[in-house]
Amino acid sequence: MIEKLKEVKKAKDILQKLDTKRKKLVLESIAYEIIKNQKDIIEKNQIDISNAFAQNLKKSMIDRLIIDKNKIKDMADAIYDIAKMPEPVGKVLAQWTTKSSLHISKVATPIGVIGIIYESRPNVTSDTFALCFKSSNITILKGGKEARNTNMAIVSSIQKVLMSYDLPKDIVTYLDISRDETYQLLKQNDTIDLIIPRGGESLISFVVSNTTIPVIKHDKGLCHTYIDKYADIQKAIDISIDAKCRRVEICGAMESLLVHKDIADIFLPQIKTEFEKRDITLKGCQKTRDIIDIDKANEKDFQTEYLDKILSIKIVEDTTQAIKHIQRYGSSHSDAIVSEDKTQAKLFLDAVDSACVYLNTSTQFTDGGEFGFGAEIGISTNKLHARGPMGLSELLTYKYQISSEGKTRA
Amino acid sequence: MIEKLKEVKKAKDILQKLDTKRKKLVLESIAYEIIKNQKDIIEKNQIDISNAFAQNLKKSMIDRLIIDKNKIKDMADAIYDIAKMPEPVGKVLAQWTTKSSLHISKVATPIGVIGIIYESRPNVTSDTFALCFKSSNITILKGGKEARNTNMAIVSSIQKVLMSYDLPKDIVTYLDISRDETYQLLKQNDTIDLIIPRGGESLISFVVSNTTIPVIKHDKGLCHTYIDKYADIQKAIDISIDAKCRRVEICGAMESLLVHKDIADIFLPQIKTEFEKRDITLKGCQKTRDIIDIDKANEKDFQTEYLDKILSIKIVEDTTQAIKHIQRYGSSHSDAIVSEDKTQAKLFLDAVDSACVYLNTSTQFTDGGEFGFGAEIGISTNKLHARGPMGLSELLTYKYQISSEGKTRA
Repeated sequence: MIEKLKEVKKAKDILQKLDTKRKKLVLESIAYEIIKNQKDIIEKNQIDISNAFAQNLKKSMIDRLIIDKNKIKDMADAIYDIAKMPEPVGKVLAQWTTKSSLHISKVATPIGVIGIIYESRPNVTSDTFALCFKSSNITILKGGKEARNTNMAIVSSIQKVLMSYDLPKDIVTYLDISRDETYQLLKQNDTIDLIIPRGGESLISFVVSNTTIPVIKHDKGLCHTYIDKYADIQKAIDISIDAKCRRVEICGAMESLLVHKDIADIFLPQIKTEFEKRDITLKGCQKTRDIIDIDKANEKDFQTEYLDKILSIKIVEDTTQAIKHIQRYGSSHSDAIVSEDKTQAKLFLDAVDSACVYLNTSTQFTDGGEFGFGAEIGISTNKLHARGPMGLSELLTYKYQISSEGKTRA
Repeated sequence: MIEKLKEVKKAKDILQKLDTKRKKLVLESIAYEIIKNQKDIIEKNQIDISNAFAQNLKKSMIDRLIIDKNKIKDMADAIYDIAKMPEPVGKVLAQWTTKSSLHISKVATPIGVIGIIYESRPNVTSDTFALCFKSSNITILKGGKEARNTNMAIVSSIQKVLMSYDLPKDIVTYLDISRDETYQLLKQNDTIDLIIPRGGESLISFVVSNTTIPVIKHDKGLCHTYIDKYADIQKAIDISIDAKCRRVEICGAMESLLVHKDIADIFLPQIKTEFEKRDITLKGCQKTRDIIDIDKANEKDFQTEYLDKILSIKIVEDTTQAIKHIQRYGSSHSDAIVSEDKTQAKLFLDAVDSACVYLNTSTQFTDGGEFGFGAEIGISTNKLHARGPMGLSELLTYKYQISSEGKTRA
């Protein structure tokens, strides 16, 4: 592995010299190559799926693993879309002349070498590579064992194209390594500039606690929707249903519904009917259960990111109590208020310190695509560098270029 | 210490609710209070200085420790300046409407709780607090033992003012703790959002290797100036002298001078005379020593941040070799090219991946004040979040505020 990583440094210089046209051409050829190699990729995927069944992996995990012709097309389309995006590297983010007549430009530059440690979904392999390549960053991929054959088939298509353009194949490195070797990988501060772990809590905590390389986490989303006293009931119902039911397994899905005490009598019976139609199990605080007949929610429930057809409900006194609940139990990912009152809305949007705070909108919109960023590398739960949906710009850093006519400071 | 940190969380909410006017008033009162208490601060400083002499601390360390009336005035002026700066929190960094009619605002928000671990200079205490307070961040200070009495006198003035405004004194916490307790501090991920270590290499490496809290380092500057074949000789001399001699002990000071082989015969004898007038010891590669009679520079010299009146010199074949030397030996802090040729300049400015890359300008300009940022919290040698001089904006993160008229995604 260490030998492989040495090659990465050489590849970095070459990658950073590629211009926009060349990068576009390479990416388009890779999209084409992935379509061309789909038979092989799907065959390799079937090996992974057989192994997954043999090892009794969870159905949800196997679902995420499956690659078919449609998925291949989606993967290729994502690469074509990224290829077409405007060049992010070299963009002048700010420019000014100082009092002492220095001309300063703040220019977007690649981060360098990005390591992605991920599980299951093989499309992450090509999506991530395409975003890193477009932003002139070297990609080091460490995928899950369960997807190894599929991932390696995808990377092999990518590397074939890179080599056909006389580019070093080490622009992307796939590491088929054990946990022990992953531990070693996390110590390569000299090579790796940033690690992005994407996966369950245990993966993320393993990464965070074993590295001093900067990490941008894609951690859990314990998301709330608060139905204020001044909510429009129909909006409250539509938004609650969407935030919970559209997809229960994503990090932007609602896990806890907070309801103002003055609207609970009208709202709760209606929403109960709607949720029951959709097979959602409800668990409530005592005050909620005084109004609708549902299971009891305990402390643990309010701390749980279900990612499932279960929802906890709590009645609160007012917006301030809703905010306090979110501060205590939330994961600073995505939280919403439904209200027609500007004061309550402002109070909530200002006080809730989450990456995305919503007014009269479903929390399921937290997604780079929906934000207009194009493809996204994930949703950061970090506070530093990048927060919330991460697109191409978030894969860049900057440097200052300063010029003058021979200025000295003394 | 853990008890103290609990109070910090409560203080955070109160701090984040303060508006611009109130923050300005508090800061101005603190500046005034520091002037008013100068006798006490200077007395406490004299205790620190006596102790420092008794412990035989280095002269340079004692120099940095000394606080007199002028220094107190500088500290107060810095706070007044920060108080007057435009409000950074709540600034709308970007705003757009998406295809699905969501209105998105990207809004600057405080990071939360910032821990500063620093050595020697007591003015860092008040400067750092003022920047954190202005950006609505809680400040946790862990200063060096050698400055403890001075630092605590300054913090006591700050806290006196906070309490007079009915604000929690825990908006700033000064920790007078041992290395063992500092180790504990570095484990407080639940309380601290960011750690900024400012000091020598051993301090920084201690912090980085013992925490999983995000760290923004203020690490070393092994800065180069490259005199290209197409340099204007007078500019090359002026810039080299300034970059090395204005202040030899700062991180933006030149440590290595790279000279194009075709200009070495003319440039080196002249610069040698100038450096000798200023008591700079020169060490050169063999080719340099064929032209001027100076000591030999070995591999170690090119790896050394002297922060002293010593300079290493190397003759290079061309700009590309200069870039390679900087990639290998530099610390990605500040590096300069002196050249009248646009092609060479562009090649250098694009390829050298340092926080600040200069054309025909002294590297000693790397400084928040010089960049027009006002006061600075330091110069980041990180690549993520903030790079180079860090002002108020770099002490903020952002959140997305999203609103619509009841949009659902399904």
